[in-house]
Amino acid sequence: MILEIAELTLMPGAEAEFLRNAASEVEIFRRAKGCRGMQIRQTPEAPGTFRLLVLWETLQNHTVDFRGSDDFTIWRALTVPHYAEPPVIKNWSVALDGFGFAGLD
Amino acid sequence: MILEIAELTLMPGAEAEFLRNAASEVEIFRRAKGCRGMQIRQTPEAPGTFRLLVLWETLQNHTVDFRGSDDFTIWRALTVPHYAEPPVIKNWSVALDGFGFAGLD
Repeated sequence: MILEIAELTLMPGAEAEFLRNAASEVEIFRRAKGCRGMQIRQTPEAPGTFRLLVLWETLQNHTVDFRGSDDFTIWRALTVPHYAEPPVIKNWSVALDGFGFAGLD
Repeated sequence: MILEIAELTLMPGAEAEFLRNAASEVEIFRRAKGCRGMQIRQTPEAPGTFRLLVLWETLQNHTVDFRGSDDFTIWRALTVPHYAEPPVIKNWSVALDGFGFAGLD
């Protein structure tokens, strides 16, 4: 399974609306081909930054199928206006599966 | 559950030994108080960079219990020599639990 990690830095004060929009569009990821999970995380160590985590069956499900879909345009329209800088997005495969990440290997 | 994400950049050629050492020390995380999972990921988009993912029951299990333990010293001795730059480590809690990350919420 590929774990997409998107590093997001939001404009000051944009957190609440960003999360409201994201919650309303979870269905976009549920119906995306090969998408197995979606979660957004925050940290007290860096307020205003978030990590969007998305599980994909294959890299192509993200980079070709999703990015080429109409839903991607909708998702971007709802989230990008809140970003203070361009997101940093990479796709991570397992190098060492220690333990405790069942379903994410 | 807290998801620690450690951003690691290795010295050229250090990947194989880094992963061998990490595999031999998975037990350190298995026995760490409050640790529920450990995994290392890599990406073709940035060779030489890795993400160490560690699941903790609480932030304190990571920042106090683990970092104050003898095992932390052992772990660092096995991994830090391979880093090309200081790791960037943060602890992420759930802001929006979409779907598919059961056990990581």
